[in-house]
Amino acid sequence: MDSGLERRSQRVRAPRRQAPHLQGDLVGKLDMQGRLIGDRYVRVCRVQTADFERAAPGHLIATEEALEARGPAGRAFGKVKRTVIGAPLSTAAAAHERLTKPKALAVLSSDALSSVAYATEEILHVLLLAGLGALALSLPIGAGIVALLLIVGISYRQTIKAYPAGGGSYIVAKDNLGELPALAAGAALLFGYIVTVAVSIAAGVAALTSAVPELRDHRVTLGLGFIVLVTVLNLRGIRESGSIFAVPTYLFLVGIVIMIALGLVRAASNGFVAQAPQMAAGEAQTATQALGVLLILTAFSRGCAALTGVEAISDGVQAFQPPEWKNARATLTWMIAILATTFAGITFLANQFGIVPREPDHPEGYETVVSQIASTIFGGGTPAYYYIQVATLAILILAANTAYSDFPRLSYFLARDRYLPKQFTFRGDRLAYSTGIVTLGILSSLMLAGFNGETTRMIPLYAVGVFTAFTLSQGGMVVRWLRLKEPGWQGGLAINIVGVVTTGVVAVVVGLTNFTRGAWIVLLLIPVLIMMFRAIHGHYAQAAGELAAQTPLEPDEIEHTVIVPVAAVNRVARQTLAYARSISSNVTAVHITDDDAEIEQMRHDWKELGSDIPMVIIESPYRSLVGPLLSYLDEIDRQRPDDTLTVVLPEFIARHWWEQVLHNQTALRIKAALLFRPGTVVTSVPYHLERRRT
Amino acid sequence: MDSGLERRSQRVRAPRRQAPHLQGDLVGKLDMQGRLIGDRYVRVCRVQTADFERAAPGHLIATEEALEARGPAGRAFGKVKRTVIGAPLSTAAAAHERLTKPKALAVLSSDALSSVAYATEEILHVLLLAGLGALALSLPIGAGIVALLLIVGISYRQTIKAYPAGGGSYIVAKDNLGELPALAAGAALLFGYIVTVAVSIAAGVAALTSAVPELRDHRVTLGLGFIVLVTVLNLRGIRESGSIFAVPTYLFLVGIVIMIALGLVRAASNGFVAQAPQMAAGEAQTATQALGVLLILTAFSRGCAALTGVEAISDGVQAFQPPEWKNARATLTWMIAILATTFAGITFLANQFGIVPREPDHPEGYETVVSQIASTIFGGGTPAYYYIQVATLAILILAANTAYSDFPRLSYFLARDRYLPKQFTFRGDRLAYSTGIVTLGILSSLMLAGFNGETTRMIPLYAVGVFTAFTLSQGGMVVRWLRLKEPGWQGGLAINIVGVVTTGVVAVVVGLTNFTRGAWIVLLLIPVLIMMFRAIHGHYAQAAGELAAQTPLEPDEIEHTVIVPVAAVNRVARQTLAYARSISSNVTAVHITDDDAEIEQMRHDWKELGSDIPMVIIESPYRSLVGPLLSYLDEIDRQRPDDTLTVVLPEFIARHWWEQVLHNQTALRIKAALLFRPGTVVTSVPYHLERRRT
Repeated sequence: MDSGLERRSQRVRAPRRQAPHLQGDLVGKLDMQGRLIGDRYVRVCRVQTADFERAAPGHLIATEEALEARGPAGRAFGKVKRTVIGAPLSTAAAAHERLTKPKALAVLSSDALSSVAYATEEILHVLLLAGLGALALSLPIGAGIVALLLIVGISYRQTIKAYPAGGGSYIVAKDNLGELPALAAGAALLFGYIVTVAVSIAAGVAALTSAVPELRDHRVTLGLGFIVLVTVLNLRGIRESGSIFAVPTYLFLVGIVIMIALGLVRAASNGFVAQAPQMAAGEAQTATQALGVLLILTAFSRGCAALTGVEAISDGVQAFQPPEWKNARATLTWMIAILATTFAGITFLANQFGIVPREPDHPEGYETVVSQIASTIFGGGTPAYYYIQVATLAILILAANTAYSDFPRLSYFLARDRYLPKQFTFRGDRLAYSTGIVTLGILSSLMLAGFNGETTRMIPLYAVGVFTAFTLSQGGMVVRWLRLKEPGWQGGLAINIVGVVTTGVVAVVVGLTNFTRGAWIVLLLIPVLIMMFRAIHGHYAQAAGELAAQTPLEPDEIEHTVIVPVAAVNRVARQTLAYARSISSNVTAVHITDDDAEIEQMRHDWKELGSDIPMVIIESPYRSLVGPLLSYLDEIDRQRPDDTLTVVLPEFIARHWWEQVLHNQTALRIKAALLFRPGTVVTSVPYHLERRRT
Repeated sequence: MDSGLERRSQRVRAPRRQAPHLQGDLVGKLDMQGRLIGDRYVRVCRVQTADFERAAPGHLIATEEALEARGPAGRAFGKVKRTVIGAPLSTAAAAHERLTKPKALAVLSSDALSSVAYATEEILHVLLLAGLGALALSLPIGAGIVALLLIVGISYRQTIKAYPAGGGSYIVAKDNLGELPALAAGAALLFGYIVTVAVSIAAGVAALTSAVPELRDHRVTLGLGFIVLVTVLNLRGIRESGSIFAVPTYLFLVGIVIMIALGLVRAASNGFVAQAPQMAAGEAQTATQALGVLLILTAFSRGCAALTGVEAISDGVQAFQPPEWKNARATLTWMIAILATTFAGITFLANQFGIVPREPDHPEGYETVVSQIASTIFGGGTPAYYYIQVATLAILILAANTAYSDFPRLSYFLARDRYLPKQFTFRGDRLAYSTGIVTLGILSSLMLAGFNGETTRMIPLYAVGVFTAFTLSQGGMVVRWLRLKEPGWQGGLAINIVGVVTTGVVAVVVGLTNFTRGAWIVLLLIPVLIMMFRAIHGHYAQAAGELAAQTPLEPDEIEHTVIVPVAAVNRVARQTLAYARSISSNVTAVHITDDDAEIEQMRHDWKELGSDIPMVIIESPYRSLVGPLLSYLDEIDRQRPDDTLTVVLPEFIARHWWEQVLHNQTALRIKAALLFRPGTVVTSVPYHLERRRT
């Protein structure tokens, strides 16, 4: 045995490229009297490795070489990861592209603008419950939503100016309203982002399946595929790199604007007389509900889905070129104008052409309202028709993608403030907040699959959270005006009071009218999330307080009791016992068995060994190993409560994973059991089986 | 800090019942000069615990109390396990019930006798390929199988006498033919037991669905349910406890014998003129194959499924009352007689009544041949008809159950001889060989599901293995007679030569005629399994040789290098550093970060700490922690190759599992990475977060 631990199989990694020969120490061996004086604790020796560069004595910088995965399995995994995610980026590589206004409009507005793809349809769906005649009410309801959009837009112009560093609802509420409203906004938004992904992807797939009905049965699979794609792209670190994202947004806008223009020309040629909506053949026209205030409010609240994503610009003010807030404000105004126009246009055309929304089980197959309008104007199957459908799909996927910036960013803020697990603050190999991205991917996939990929079923969950966040943000602004009383505060205050009242009323309406259709989930979830945030916060605060205690470091006061479970007096056991004996003189070996012959064998072997380590044999008639060992440790604790108890375990490491299976995982089971045993130090002494050398 | 490790949250388990106050030592603290002299290493102190009884100095016996699970999760799991599996049994509780001949017949013959439920049908299935006219050939084929049965039966009478301790094919082949034939027999039998379970359960479910056709679509689910049931019952330790098992066997036998008797009476009233087989309405009568030797041999080979399970009695000679071998022989004779009679009877009646076997997709629904005979004799829907179906289901489940004795027993033998993982030799809480039982349950479930619960598709895989094992067993007997030349050896030799030639020819015929229908799987699998057995054996042999080396135990020669990764200079780090420093004077702390501010903070805090432990800071610009740490350890290994490297890790243990998630699992990740690093000792120093006490 060469100095206790056998390590003939030790793997030494040869440096792969010649590193500059560095002066620097890795281990400072000090005698007992040694003390740290300034930086002079460092012994100087030569380092020959490509894994490190030396910055100062006792300060090394790891190179990319140090990241290289170990072992064949690790290397294979590393290769796959690098192919899918890309090579790691150094922290210093983080940089922020500043966006011009047209690019920013494309990047930050896709979520809002894309909602015209489904908002009109959701209004019509509700109205249809009161019969075909009720569909005409979409016009006044649409007008109401445009008015609401303008109010929210003007309100957010105030927020952008007040929070040039980025004013998401969580930040504004935290700054002005305190912890609870901030957490409510945070919870509402996190959930909102999940719904954004699920709804946008489902609506995008609906645009696709309207054009290619054969794909309709695969909508969940398609949707999940798009979510995986967007998740992987974001893990690769796609950030708001304007140019790529500008393309689908403008393709969509150009297409939609041309479609609306042609539609208006056609409607004008009819003298703007709306066609009467017609049911498809074979579909009974049954009004299941009376037309009343409740139904109109419900239709209105579903249309509010058009407003989702409006706050994105106020979150991302920092992404604009200077003067940031002015450019952001101008872009917001443009966005509101475009959104209001396209939404109004589509709603008007749906009315003019007598479009009837289709249920998922429609006899002629499901088709979106936008697809119906497009095929009315361009003719189904024409290139222009397909252009609209593909552009709609593209902008909706882009809309989902914006949630992949927003969700990880918000969860980073919450984790930084210790309301979410620390993991949300870590940046992955590509500088993206991997935990948030993966969490969003999983949760939105579950939602999409749970609602069977049907947009209409998810919409009732959508607007509640968004309007709760709007209200809290506006409320925060009101408090801010009153608090700071900056020049011209009265005007801002008036705007935000209108904003908070309007969005508050809408939030209540949306919550009540959609309560039974799913809003109850959100209203239940937000308090639950708040409680979770606070529990996490409480835990971190307590842990931090406890860990901060300035306890002295007194190694000499530690009294050791070391226990070594021994299965047989073989080479592994000898190595383990030697290690245990080298760290303490108070070592006891324990042998647990249910076999009388084995007990005699062990007594004999132990006498042969001639060690000064005492052996305790525990007979276990129920063949259990872990139970008696734990009981024995309990008993030792009772007898020597002030000792530090260390269990030294031999760990048999085979050469291959399949060989590992052949050795019963006793050490693993003992370790698992000891993990939850307070105050027990566990030491694993590995024994690596050699390759046959004869 | 009370003596280094804080352990205020230490859990002390109070004894729940008053144990006799024991004299005995748990820890022998010896000074450096202490030596083991006889049993006198034991210091005497009082033990107050219900977990142990004291047998001798340094020898404790764990009571059932010591098994009690720790922690709420552990206790909950323990409760569920105890409810499903039952309370643990002590090793001393193992006892073997000796069986009377009638009970033994019931217990050990169910596998063989139950095969009459499907053997005739399988012959008819093949013959039907040559048209309805070919079905009459079932009579000569059936006669051939009865003859084969008699030859095998007489051969096994020899084996029983020669191996009164139990003569399974593996044992006989190992004893006489050597390793390779023994492993071939073992592989063939292990696979055969898996097929036994799948086929018996599938045939049992077929009996059930013949009576209740509505269940036919749920046959896989039903079959899996029965497998789970049998598996759980066997984990509970149902052993060959005659009385319970005798019931279904005799119910089945009585029913079948009465049915055959009534059928013969009816056939006699017709003057034993066979009815012409008639196709069901709507089914075309198309002979797809010419009637030739190959088809007849195929039909014969499928009918050989009737012989599966015949060797059970020779395996279980020890279960009989003395004189064991005589009683076993008599029982074997009875079994062969009953099996031959019932198989011949059913085959004859099927011919007399013009029964046509039905394919799984038969227009009138699938129905077994036995069910057709029963409904012809008793009338469908009569209590007598249902009795036959239920009794058939019961004996088939019992047949599957016998494989649950055989498979774990054989895998125990193989594991004892180190051809299978050690785990197969462990007995669970209820003294059953849990690993074998669970393995059999999983593999037979996969087979049943893979073949969609259709007996006919699995039969081609069945007989090859069984006849391979028969041949090897008979061959072993031939060698044994020639080797030992016991009195009367010439007669035995003659019998076994006939046996080995017959079963050998049948094995070849079965293998060839079923080759494309699935036998190729078996013929491929047996060599693969043999290679696996030998690889496992080679590994254990090498490991044992390596571990046996009598290396001396020299703790004083170990030179320690201890590395402590430190995240921040907090209480956890202080505790860990104190522990590390207490086991060695050569300790180095390592801090890995990507943050310049953190580096400054660490330098400052470390100076404040005033420890004699040097600190090395590693800057990791790619934010990776594990990679740079491993590279650093590699570098230390290069500089100090003879030292024993110990990595001491602080391990933060929260009070609840959900809190644990909140702490990034750095220690866990480092441990996982170090597991495969040769020669690195890993020590986990737990820090248990306290409950708030203020």
